[in-house]
Amino acid sequence: MKINAILTMGFVVFMVTTTDAQEKRGRARDFGVFTGILHTGKYNAITDVAGVKVGHTTLIKGDSVRTGVTAIVPHGGNVFQDKVPAAIYVGNGFGKSMGLSQIKELGNLETPILLTNTLNTPLVANALIDYMLLQPGNEQVKSVNAMVGETNDGGLNDIRGRHVRAEDVLKAINEAKEGMVEEGCVGAGTGTEALGYKGGIGTSSRVLPASKGGYTVGVLVQSNFGGVLQINGAPVGRELNNFYLMDKSKPYKADGSCMIIIATDAPLSDRNLERLAKRSYIAFGNVGAFSSNGSGDYAVAFSTYERNRIPYQSKNKVRNIDDLNNDELSPLFMAVWEATEEALLNSLFMATDTKGNGREVKALPIKKTLEILKKYNALDQNTLPKAIEK
Amino acid sequence: MKINAILTMGFVVFMVTTTDAQEKRGRARDFGVFTGILHTGKYNAITDVAGVKVGHTTLIKGDSVRTGVTAIVPHGGNVFQDKVPAAIYVGNGFGKSMGLSQIKELGNLETPILLTNTLNTPLVANALIDYMLLQPGNEQVKSVNAMVGETNDGGLNDIRGRHVRAEDVLKAINEAKEGMVEEGCVGAGTGTEALGYKGGIGTSSRVLPASKGGYTVGVLVQSNFGGVLQINGAPVGRELNNFYLMDKSKPYKADGSCMIIIATDAPLSDRNLERLAKRSYIAFGNVGAFSSNGSGDYAVAFSTYERNRIPYQSKNKVRNIDDLNNDELSPLFMAVWEATEEALLNSLFMATDTKGNGREVKALPIKKTLEILKKYNALDQNTLPKAIEK
Amino acid sequence: MKINAILTMGFVVFMVTTTDAQEKRGRARDFGVFTGILHTGKYNAITDVAGVKVGHTTLIKGDSVRTGVTAIVPHGGNVFQDKVPAAIYVGNGFGKSMGLSQIKELGNLETPILLTNTLNTPLVANALIDYMLLQPGNEQVKSVNAMVGETNDGGLNDIRGRHVRAEDVLKAINEAKEGMVEEGCVGAGTGTEALGYKGGIGTSSRVLPASKGGYTVGVLVQSNFGGVLQINGAPVGRELNNFYLMDKSKPYKADGSCMIIIATDAPLSDRNLERLAKRSYIAFGNVGAFSSNGSGDYAVAFSTYERNRIPYQSKNKVRNIDDLNNDELSPLFMAVWEATEEALLNSLFMATDTKGNGREVKALPIKKTLEILKKYNALDQNTLPKAIEK
Amino acid sequence: MKINAILTMGFVVFMVTTTDAQEKRGRARDFGVFTGILHTGKYNAITDVAGVKVGHTTLIKGDSVRTGVTAIVPHGGNVFQDKVPAAIYVGNGFGKSMGLSQIKELGNLETPILLTNTLNTPLVANALIDYMLLQPGNEQVKSVNAMVGETNDGGLNDIRGRHVRAEDVLKAINEAKEGMVEEGCVGAGTGTEALGYKGGIGTSSRVLPASKGGYTVGVLVQSNFGGVLQINGAPVGRELNNFYLMDKSKPYKADGSCMIIIATDAPLSDRNLERLAKRSYIAFGNVGAFSSNGSGDYAVAFSTYERNRIPYQSKNKVRNIDDLNNDELSPLFMAVWEATEEALLNSLFMATDTKGNGREVKALPIKKTLEILKKYNALDQNTLPKAIEK
Repeated sequence: MKINAILTMGFVVFMVTTTDAQEKRGRARDFGVFTGILHTGKYNAITDVAGVKVGHTTLIKGDSVRTGVTAIVPHGGNVFQDKVPAAIYVGNGFGKSMGLSQIKELGNLETPILLTNTLNTPLVANALIDYMLLQPGNEQVKSVNAMVGETNDGGLNDIRGRHVRAEDVLKAINEAKEGMVEEGCVGAGTGTEALGYKGGIGTSSRVLPASKGGYTVGVLVQSNFGGVLQINGAPVGRELNNFYLMDKSKPYKADGSCMIIIATDAPLSDRNLERLAKRSYIAFGNVGAFSSNGSGDYAVAFSTYERNRIPYQSKNKVRNIDDLNNDELSPLFMAVWEATEEALLNSLFMATDTKGNGREVKALPIKKTLEILKKYNALDQNTLPKAIEK
Repeated sequence: MKINAILTMGFVVFMVTTTDAQEKRGRARDFGVFTGILHTGKYNAITDVAGVKVGHTTLIKGDSVRTGVTAIVPHGGNVFQDKVPAAIYVGNGFGKSMGLSQIKELGNLETPILLTNTLNTPLVANALIDYMLLQPGNEQVKSVNAMVGETNDGGLNDIRGRHVRAEDVLKAINEAKEGMVEEGCVGAGTGTEALGYKGGIGTSSRVLPASKGGYTVGVLVQSNFGGVLQINGAPVGRELNNFYLMDKSKPYKADGSCMIIIATDAPLSDRNLERLAKRSYIAFGNVGAFSSNGSGDYAVAFSTYERNRIPYQSKNKVRNIDDLNNDELSPLFMAVWEATEEALLNSLFMATDTKGNGREVKALPIKKTLEILKKYNALDQNTLPKAIEK
Repeated sequence: MKINAILTMGFVVFMVTTTDAQEKRGRARDFGVFTGILHTGKYNAITDVAGVKVGHTTLIKGDSVRTGVTAIVPHGGNVFQDKVPAAIYVGNGFGKSMGLSQIKELGNLETPILLTNTLNTPLVANALIDYMLLQPGNEQVKSVNAMVGETNDGGLNDIRGRHVRAEDVLKAINEAKEGMVEEGCVGAGTGTEALGYKGGIGTSSRVLPASKGGYTVGVLVQSNFGGVLQINGAPVGRELNNFYLMDKSKPYKADGSCMIIIATDAPLSDRNLERLAKRSYIAFGNVGAFSSNGSGDYAVAFSTYERNRIPYQSKNKVRNIDDLNNDELSPLFMAVWEATEEALLNSLFMATDTKGNGREVKALPIKKTLEILKKYNALDQNTLPKAIEK
Repeated sequence: MKINAILTMGFVVFMVTTTDAQEKRGRARDFGVFTGILHTGKYNAITDVAGVKVGHTTLIKGDSVRTGVTAIVPHGGNVFQDKVPAAIYVGNGFGKSMGLSQIKELGNLETPILLTNTLNTPLVANALIDYMLLQPGNEQVKSVNAMVGETNDGGLNDIRGRHVRAEDVLKAINEAKEGMVEEGCVGAGTGTEALGYKGGIGTSSRVLPASKGGYTVGVLVQSNFGGVLQINGAPVGRELNNFYLMDKSKPYKADGSCMIIIATDAPLSDRNLERLAKRSYIAFGNVGAFSSNGSGDYAVAFSTYERNRIPYQSKNKVRNIDDLNNDELSPLFMAVWEATEEALLNSLFMATDTKGNGREVKALPIKKTLEILKKYNALDQNTLPKAIEK
């Protein structure tokens, strides 16, 4: 598999060239799939929120190791010493994410966010603790709230083997970088499945008009769930006859899970970050998912707004901070809703056919999908009326 | 306005004939707008759940009284003496619904559910208490948890006048009936607005295949919120250039609210009723809404399953009940998601142009909408693959 | 009944002289019952938080009207136009309080808080809406989140008669004042019962040492619940053989409810106000209560800190506010815990024998209680070590 | 240290004989400290709930390994295949417990509950996953929700070293047994501190009168928090001048944490288990704690009632279960409140002086404490009136 980053039409594009006659992959927008009415950021990625970095460790070994780690790093400093306001929304709590209750109680995040497979969650958390304890300045730290999310890639991955190791975790954190984000079968998305096809990592962003504050919202997802695939309103799953039929004779996986990581540079309180996180749940409807019983659907949102950082130890007992008014939230809600939908689509468009555990899960067939989208006039909707210009 | 109930293609249809050159109204399905893959119940209404009754009092007086009351009665008995398992999901809590915390704490509902306008909530609750205290058998009752939901119809209605009176409440309860449900500008939907057009009451239902238990889920909504209208995936709001632009120069109302009432005959615990209620929130995405800051979005779900009723006073300290396994919930989640989407669409399709407060809010222009749906191939999707037959 | 306010030992004291041979009443501290280690404010009342006002309307009519309204007004301005950060903690949600979900969602309170009896909640809310709509400056307001709490005084009061009227509500708000607060059988406490005796309104406050910020926390309770009365650790309920025996032959009322209103001048976020509110629940243990099934136990906390007020309409989209660090919360938690315990005791010490509904509920027998406290060395504990001096 | 189990006055007693002139230790009741009015079970331990087992691995090595693992096993079968109804209450979420969100979502517990130190949480969770995957019958299991709680023993333990290993976890589970439970400095309580003294593991139970169902409630705590120690109402902390002074010059640890594990044989729904768990929080007040900012206070409650178990895979889609009415909950609430208070006291009475990290934390001085209790007449309160006899 060869990945080339090219610049087309002002969008940064990963085109994945496969040697085994797989279709060329690209992001949804590369194929004319424009969702929503707001503008994206430069990279159409969570990294459009300044300072946010993403790193992946992809583990593909032998027949059945198809897993990995994805790290989302909120800023370039010591996150424990300089915490960020954060919040959690639990869509459906059939999951094993760690670190939730402290984020909720204290309203902040003190580590990078790591994503992995279900059964490796504790190992990854332990490695994250290693990393945090060894950060310069943290020598006296005796308590760390490691935030680790997961979905279950046991369909393609030997999940019981728990193949992620501490060094894989450190690599994902240490190699995290700004700018373009790899998507599809990488990191924690290596072995996941979504909406009847190969899932994985996807990302997207939205930038508000200046009159609405000009804030950026970035989303990164680890997609691993089922439903009745819709793309930009077109009933792709039904057209392809591949959807949740409620029929055990046709083993379509409605369960799974979805992790949604949300970053913004808007000065939001933890309460408003929770409200923001909640809106990502609505985007499930737009791709045809309904958060099935077995889906562990969690959203974590944080703000990078610098004045609002929370120092671990502070001379000042009172922090002077900025707080965006409740009344200004609607455009941000729209932004996270749109970006989540597109991040989910990107995870499908960028994923590739994957074998593991003696099965093969096919990637979304792009050519057929585009035909369907054409049939439903769901391509190139960027010609429709839009929100206020930048 | 003349309302005729006719039977077309097996669906019960209200066709509203207006005298002032308004378009003929009908339910979404009557025009070929088929959403989802599950079958509807007989009436495609919340009343498909056996025993559930709906009543409306519509108040239209002078220039600016455009409001009312809608009652959803869970069963034909004394609801206080024979409570039903129930749960609440608060999508966005910018609302004044009453009765939430007790339903959450005790897991049951002990009154009919009433819907009205924001500022009449207390008056309606007081009248509901009147009603409950006077029910035969309730002579000694000194505590009633009145469940009243609301949305703000102050755009068309003189809401500060609080025109709903106790007799209007009693009428809605007493005239509640099974079978067909009036939709659009009736009851609590008389003055509401949704997605850029006249909103109101809408309802829909889904019936699971027998292999999934054959359960029915019914939904009734009071729609009053904004967004970027989608119908069956088609970008109707953008095509009509009527959507949330974030632009104060063009006063599009993104705020508002939505009450969602959900009934099922499945034997669900209150925990699983809460999970069911939550899925209705995802349907917002499917109509193009994102639960704006000012929207009070609440879902109330109850089960009519008889063995699980909760007597007010019981000889038995332990109730023997049935509990549908968590693993069986996904089809129900899908059902509520689909039925909420369709109920929301019905509220738009059935509403009619309405003047009040010196403004006029137009109904969804059906002819133009159907043209758009045709352009996006979004009509007659009942020909696409579906879930298992009944 | 004659009430004299006298000043003793630096504490403001209400001594209630009764004409019918009832014992002289006074606040817990007046009798040497000192709880906790922190200092009180000047009035040992919620009004020690600058700007907070309390008003009561007490309704005693005929044989069986024993109810009323208590108003807690957060500041002297228009509370709708100038909202205060606020939060809710639901200890046990078997109650009918109104206004909770919006306070939780938006993090603010926009009306005075009113307390009354269960079945009058809607009437009181409606009158509060009247009041708010008519406040100068609120002419265009079409939505008000009325915060009304309640407990059930149906043991002594003809609660089904719903005797509170709109004018009673307006009177409580309009006559609210700073300084000394009437306690016992006044306002919403007129007909309540607590821990086997007559309950009612109680209040108390704590002031932190300057080194901890010097903040004030004030608490006001409407007590109406059962348990096994403890006073300053002494097992008063058991000594008086009057406690929750779980025995239907001896009708001891374990159910009931408790409303707890908390004010502070500390610059707390709504998240930290919720945490503050939660600590009041722990104080139940200190008076021998365990929040029984039928108890509606709610705490509402707000901050009067001026910079953090939330204007209804603002030119500035971002508010610059102050936020006390999480790490500074523990002293405030201790303060609310102590003040709640003492407010509960004050509600008992200040209440008087009350007849209604053909029953009589006796006040806590002070003389006997003091003997018991002496036996348990529970008096004059102000001689024990204390926290840092002011 | 030598531990002898003796039987005195019908109570099973551990008397700890120390070689270094430490006082003899015993449980609170052994010294005449009787709290509450309900009867205890046979062992006055969580193991009074039939089938519940407890095991400890205590790690004491060199100067600074003072930690361990405690396992609470809900029943003798395969807990994953035969889950128990369960719930979580988060008192203060400054903690790193794992497994919470799934228990909340699904209402059940599928592993033993393990307790350990903060930074070992992931390692312990991973070992618990090992254990679960290897249980006979779990060969195909690919998802396990490991429930691990923790408190921070970093004051006495080299917590950064994370000295707990997988074999320590397996030992605690495998050696778990019914009957008497070791308390004090054992297992996860080896290095903890509470209320100014050495904390640790404590347990207690209550049995309801037959007329109230005869149910048993058992509690086990890992105590590690600060406050103003009260014992049976006596102000022990203030008398000993050892309490939270809010004074950094006197380093009294108000933070810490408390894990509370609750078992009952009553047929409670997960909703009512959550309500039960919540009442343990109120017991904090009775020992003088107020859940400080830095305290991670979590309660986990489960029911062992056999008919209500949840099979992993079931032929029946609907389970027929028993559900204790809400109205019957108050006696159980009282039971958990009392048992939590006594379990906390037992953790103090049974702990012994402990050195580690170059510090020494003294055990509660029993002789002095008893003198104080005598001064406050707080001993032998079993002579006071009680609840209905067994």
